[in-house]
Amino acid sequence: MAPSLAQILVSEVFGTFLLILLGCGVVAGVVLPASKSKDSGWIVITLGWGLAVFVGVYAAYATGAHLNPAVTVGLAVAGRDLAEGVPASGGAIATYLAAQMLGAFLGATAVWLTYKKQFDQEAEPAAKLGVFSTGPTVRSYGWNLVTEAFATFVLVGWVLFSGKTPSQLGPLAVALVVVAIGLSLGGPTGYAINPARDLGPRIAHAVLPIPGKGGSDWGYSWVPVAGPLLGAVAAGLIVPNLAGLF
Amino acid sequence: MAPSLAQILVSEVFGTFLLILLGCGVVAGVVLPASKSKDSGWIVITLGWGLAVFVGVYAAYATGAHLNPAVTVGLAVAGRDLAEGVPASGGAIATYLAAQMLGAFLGATAVWLTYKKQFDQEAEPAAKLGVFSTGPTVRSYGWNLVTEAFATFVLVGWVLFSGKTPSQLGPLAVALVVVAIGLSLGGPTGYAINPARDLGPRIAHAVLPIPGKGGSDWGYSWVPVAGPLLGAVAAGLIVPNLAGLF
Amino acid sequence: MAPSLAQILVSEVFGTFLLILLGCGVVAGVVLPASKSKDSGWIVITLGWGLAVFVGVYAAYATGAHLNPAVTVGLAVAGRDLAEGVPASGGAIATYLAAQMLGAFLGATAVWLTYKKQFDQEAEPAAKLGVFSTGPTVRSYGWNLVTEAFATFVLVGWVLFSGKTPSQLGPLAVALVVVAIGLSLGGPTGYAINPARDLGPRIAHAVLPIPGKGGSDWGYSWVPVAGPLLGAVAAGLIVPNLAGLF
Amino acid sequence: MAPSLAQILVSEVFGTFLLILLGCGVVAGVVLPASKSKDSGWIVITLGWGLAVFVGVYAAYATGAHLNPAVTVGLAVAGRDLAEGVPASGGAIATYLAAQMLGAFLGATAVWLTYKKQFDQEAEPAAKLGVFSTGPTVRSYGWNLVTEAFATFVLVGWVLFSGKTPSQLGPLAVALVVVAIGLSLGGPTGYAINPARDLGPRIAHAVLPIPGKGGSDWGYSWVPVAGPLLGAVAAGLIVPNLAGLF
Repeated sequence: MAPSLAQILVSEVFGTFLLILLGCGVVAGVVLPASKSKDSGWIVITLGWGLAVFVGVYAAYATGAHLNPAVTVGLAVAGRDLAEGVPASGGAIATYLAAQMLGAFLGATAVWLTYKKQFDQEAEPAAKLGVFSTGPTVRSYGWNLVTEAFATFVLVGWVLFSGKTPSQLGPLAVALVVVAIGLSLGGPTGYAINPARDLGPRIAHAVLPIPGKGGSDWGYSWVPVAGPLLGAVAAGLIVPNLAGLF
Repeated sequence: MAPSLAQILVSEVFGTFLLILLGCGVVAGVVLPASKSKDSGWIVITLGWGLAVFVGVYAAYATGAHLNPAVTVGLAVAGRDLAEGVPASGGAIATYLAAQMLGAFLGATAVWLTYKKQFDQEAEPAAKLGVFSTGPTVRSYGWNLVTEAFATFVLVGWVLFSGKTPSQLGPLAVALVVVAIGLSLGGPTGYAINPARDLGPRIAHAVLPIPGKGGSDWGYSWVPVAGPLLGAVAAGLIVPNLAGLF
Repeated sequence: MAPSLAQILVSEVFGTFLLILLGCGVVAGVVLPASKSKDSGWIVITLGWGLAVFVGVYAAYATGAHLNPAVTVGLAVAGRDLAEGVPASGGAIATYLAAQMLGAFLGATAVWLTYKKQFDQEAEPAAKLGVFSTGPTVRSYGWNLVTEAFATFVLVGWVLFSGKTPSQLGPLAVALVVVAIGLSLGGPTGYAINPARDLGPRIAHAVLPIPGKGGSDWGYSWVPVAGPLLGAVAAGLIVPNLAGLF
Repeated sequence: MAPSLAQILVSEVFGTFLLILLGCGVVAGVVLPASKSKDSGWIVITLGWGLAVFVGVYAAYATGAHLNPAVTVGLAVAGRDLAEGVPASGGAIATYLAAQMLGAFLGATAVWLTYKKQFDQEAEPAAKLGVFSTGPTVRSYGWNLVTEAFATFVLVGWVLFSGKTPSQLGPLAVALVVVAIGLSLGGPTGYAINPARDLGPRIAHAVLPIPGKGGSDWGYSWVPVAGPLLGAVAAGLIVPNLAGLF
């Protein structure tokens, strides 16, 4: 039976909440002071984000588990349904996107509560912002866009072309794709690959009373929104037209 | 056929024994002197604990493989059976909890025997206690409770909401959830997320004749019991009421 | 229904493109300056390449997902079909090989674009070449050949002997085999184990306008072609003759 | 159809060859000079050995894939068949054991060839031996036995108790158990948990013309044989008698 809009809302809020709680949580553990996982490296960051997807997809499975506006947009551009029995209508798309933003905001807030005493320590304001949102190592909006677009093309492309390959990994498959993207394409920009993952926590960073926080780097904030959407649209246009394979 | 209470007892003792042998074992390898895995980092700790769950769940599969009072309590609060054909009666709950405590105590003792010559080396008393039980980086009972509650909410929540998602990972799925929690939410308190995992080994630390051991930090010992139970109750109350999704 | 040659071409180009984008991408992240994954170690390199295989195999699944001339040659030597309904004719083999080379070239180009600002930084020319192609730690063509042959024997052998073992891992299984080879046999030469993976990106390195690049080390370039083919032929000859087991 | 003794021989030789090629190979990469994976840590060692099991089990799947005398002995003690249609007769047991020893010797020889130029470098004789065989950090035959016995109890126990748990991981499941044992119980002795894995390569070390090698530490060589057999016998006696659960 097709889920209702209310179910989509609850499901995507809950799934994205868990995604961000675990995803931004792993960054908090690695970059904040007084954490047992401090400085534990890129393998911890990338596995942590991948398994955050794993848990989040379980939570939102009944409604397609997008957890990411790029996935919603990519499916719509490709002419696919958003979930079983849910065509890509304007109302459905809006419901997914609103739920993703709200879930991301709530998840980031929960990270702050979980790591409250670590946020209270002295640390670079950039480290505190880094728990919430991504930023590039070399600021160059054009090339940062390119990086985010390629990375998101892989993610949304995989969602579109993986359907006919048999496997019984369940949500682990897409989680491993996100690990792959992080390991391989995350170096330049920290792989947002998800507008809600970046913008929701950035808003949380701006409004929460975090001691010693700096600015929320709004100048960069459009890149991890536009880059992923660009990659998603490219995937949605290209993958369905590859020699009838998918 | 529903398991008997005697089978539940044996099964949960055996499974929790293996969970703690491998779980506290990985900590011993990383923190004690004269170990080949000394200082091998958070990825080793978290994968080690996750795979400890993997092995323990195989061992106790026939009786539901809780291995954790938080799981038992969460299922009961949610109105679920504790295992196929085992309703959440007082006697069954008590059997699960007693078995988990006994198994954890025995597992911690086996870790001591396995790492006997490493425990005999000079080391900080805190490192020796750290093999057995968790402790926070910043002592703040209230916030430590919050961290443990959020982390356990994810675990028990997953147990409650994952049932309808198809996958054939078997015990690997919950193992990966525990890896996720460790990577992402373990930084502040070392993620007990299981009262038996913390209290059973703490009792073992108190009674075993470990050379150079210090106190067992009983002042903190209630946090990794109360925090996980709080998170489990929250999951048991919230998850079954999410828009009829689970 | 058997795929057409055009479908094989598109499918193998696309799959090898993704393989190299993610595979050479992880090397870029680890060796180039100004990357968040800089110096994150062998576990990141090997998992990154393994998951690159995971994604690439999903993309090319419909046509057998060779992504590697050694696999194509090994199947042909063993007398197997190249994909369901595709016998190992000269035309089919040539299509697979051409597609793999083209996909690898395109993938390497995409890595350059993704890591453009990192390539623009000062760095050893050898590091920049290392993103594209493999090289040995100790240059000794004969022994380097031996290493590549043993490593590829494991890969192609596994493709030939794994068919009867039940599992539902889908593309994860071969991905883990590639992780295994990297972890265990990658130390001496960086495990090309795939002529297209090495030669395609080497050509890209030679033709792309990369600032501060050095030579493309053509003197070594035949080793990661000949070694893998040697191992593939050995596997194709030996595995089908092992006591009727496979 | 039950495999013949000849098939068992070929299958176990081939599987154990691959197990040791990849298993001792990962140690070579981490401990020898001039290797790209030099000093890459315990996570690489343990994943490498686990995935060596993964590949080896695929190769020997048709005949039960013991690859380890402790598994053969444990099954026999528990009264189980050694493979489908292969009761634990003296001749079958002897075939498994001889094949495992031969395969391990050949695998270790292949590691030497693969890492030939690395073995030719200056290095501590202990490091060169460490590629082949295990050794304890603290020499204490009694406690080293205890460690190996506990670790092997987990492995052989799992083989005996895992049969009724549904999962579709195929050979990945036992591979993950070996990763678990390495991470958690490998610190004191380097987890032989397999008499053939230790003794076969030790013989290879003794007979191969490795430049700069030292002694083969025969004084310790009985421990990684006796300890695993002890653990296997314990598992074979205990697991089948656990309340009728397995």
